[in-house]
Amino acid sequence: MKHNFGAGPCILPQEVFQEASRSVVDFNGLSILEVSHRHKDFVAVMDEATDLVKKALNVPEGYSVIFLQGGASLGFLISALNMMRETKKASYINTGTWAKKAMTEAKKVGFEVIEAASSADTNFNYIPKNFQIDSASDYLHFTSNNTIFGTQFKEMPKTSLPLVCDMSSDIFSREINVSDFDLIYAGAQKNMGPAGTTLYIVKDEILGKSTSDFMPTYLDLKTHAEKDSMFNTPPVFPVYASMLNLRNLMKTGGVRGAQERNEAKANLIYNEIDNNPLFEGTVAKEDRSNMNVTFLMKDDSRVDEFNALWQENNLVGLKGHRSVGGYRASMYNALPIESVQVLVDLMKDFSNKG
Amino acid sequence: MKHNFGAGPCILPQEVFQEASRSVVDFNGLSILEVSHRHKDFVAVMDEATDLVKKALNVPEGYSVIFLQGGASLGFLISALNMMRETKKASYINTGTWAKKAMTEAKKVGFEVIEAASSADTNFNYIPKNFQIDSASDYLHFTSNNTIFGTQFKEMPKTSLPLVCDMSSDIFSREINVSDFDLIYAGAQKNMGPAGTTLYIVKDEILGKSTSDFMPTYLDLKTHAEKDSMFNTPPVFPVYASMLNLRNLMKTGGVRGAQERNEAKANLIYNEIDNNPLFEGTVAKEDRSNMNVTFLMKDDSRVDEFNALWQENNLVGLKGHRSVGGYRASMYNALPIESVQVLVDLMKDFSNKG
Repeated sequence: MKHNFGAGPCILPQEVFQEASRSVVDFNGLSILEVSHRHKDFVAVMDEATDLVKKALNVPEGYSVIFLQGGASLGFLISALNMMRETKKASYINTGTWAKKAMTEAKKVGFEVIEAASSADTNFNYIPKNFQIDSASDYLHFTSNNTIFGTQFKEMPKTSLPLVCDMSSDIFSREINVSDFDLIYAGAQKNMGPAGTTLYIVKDEILGKSTSDFMPTYLDLKTHAEKDSMFNTPPVFPVYASMLNLRNLMKTGGVRGAQERNEAKANLIYNEIDNNPLFEGTVAKEDRSNMNVTFLMKDDSRVDEFNALWQENNLVGLKGHRSVGGYRASMYNALPIESVQVLVDLMKDFSNKG
Repeated sequence: MKHNFGAGPCILPQEVFQEASRSVVDFNGLSILEVSHRHKDFVAVMDEATDLVKKALNVPEGYSVIFLQGGASLGFLISALNMMRETKKASYINTGTWAKKAMTEAKKVGFEVIEAASSADTNFNYIPKNFQIDSASDYLHFTSNNTIFGTQFKEMPKTSLPLVCDMSSDIFSREINVSDFDLIYAGAQKNMGPAGTTLYIVKDEILGKSTSDFMPTYLDLKTHAEKDSMFNTPPVFPVYASMLNLRNLMKTGGVRGAQERNEAKANLIYNEIDNNPLFEGTVAKEDRSNMNVTFLMKDDSRVDEFNALWQENNLVGLKGHRSVGGYRASMYNALPIESVQVLVDLMKDFSNKG
């Protein structure tokens, strides 16, 4: 068995793989891949996936749940276009790569983009706090978790502006208060399902209010909210597998259960990083991500030896992103604490051997 | 066994379902759903899928093959944006629903859209021919096959303008000359693979030449051509299953082999429609689609009886689209001629019983 610490597309529960695999050959007598999206069997899948999102996150009345395509990269654009109002100014919290890409797309659709805060000064190793927000902006945008730098907002930003969040890498990993947000979007491929679908949770009252001159049909969230994610052919299999995964989430304690397991995993590994003389974390302690744990080895001369060790032991995806170096242990919902324990034991043994 | 005449997402070869199913539980030791798109194993999948498209369609040098998301509905927008040049006029051949949607998106991005020809006068039951094309347009756009009305261009339009084609429903079903086109796009879910990815075949020299003021990163084909479809996380499983299907296509005679089988299937059913006194085709004979066969029953009083008959005999997806009524037998590459024979035999028996 491999221990999959990959940053995404990433591990999902084995039961989900098993059932998804069966349905590729037999889903009510056809393959799930050959079922029409208009057939009642798939309409039921889409409805259940939508309902499971609402249940898992306690989505209140007045919000729509939409499954689209294009990943967060298209979400950067869709969120900006749909949130454009009178001022055509938008405030962004810059926590690195993904936030910067989101800012770029907002500029491209005609926003004056205001960097409300940034942690660029120290290579994005903390979450900015206590900053001024331009009160005339159409919205405030942030990335709840940064996969590359391993930072995570523990408290969501407080603002009177409409709040927009790219929640790709930590949605369903912890409880959130959806009513604090006007728009949440998230690529599936961390805690929701396989790559190929993107979730939008949108406050209905913002739909159709954009002041953008440019609003193609596919990019207008109103289009998809009105058609229950069936405006055009949805990504049938990614939605189906996401539905299976959300079912599994609800059977295993829901988001609260996932959050407790994620906190236990994070405590286990951060404790080892802090106590092991060979390693050090890269992120300010209070802003450490429970999803992506970034750490360095202090002794460069032993890097090859450690790399060989974890690879021999069936650990996968531990190499750090080039922007940070070192190691990144991604610990999404489906990664069992046993895998984290294997890593921690390797780190301990390795340090004792040194 | 069911005979899947569904219009899409639709039948693929059983071998593809079997292998895709296995890979959902074991693809080099992981599930294909949990493999990072940056891992060499998936990069190899994307490379092979791209190469297979090139081989299958004899894509010449100077063209890029791209796998995206969003379906043809996003393709309507992407094609218009990327093809915008000096005149901001675009000519479209209107063969119904899909062409009209494409025209709408071109208007939304600022084109003056010219309807070069239309078959709206008789509910789109033929392909317009011998029409004038505005020589100042930036491009000519057409839909090679209309799934709803059952029409298909047997000869591609001749023009000196850059030629753009939505080939969603008949790509890989017949040989084409890619060098006649500046841009081809196609949702996967007919002859390429499962829903969730969209193919673009683009002449490299048109990349980066758009005059549109609005060009978000994701919508610019240059972005994706330069990154070999890996600008952002691709829809891993839909691309993988498409690769398997393209492998299968190449092993079974390639596009030429598929074309011969499709012609044999079309001859079989159209011959029955023309000779059976109970049924009639809806489309001008020379424009009949080999992919989507639309036909009506002449005797309204026996409709329920026939519907019960085909449903009892495990035929699926034969109900006509509401815009045409009657029946639609979609016969994509993977539908075996044996399934068509079953339908033809039912029609014959039913007529003889009457």
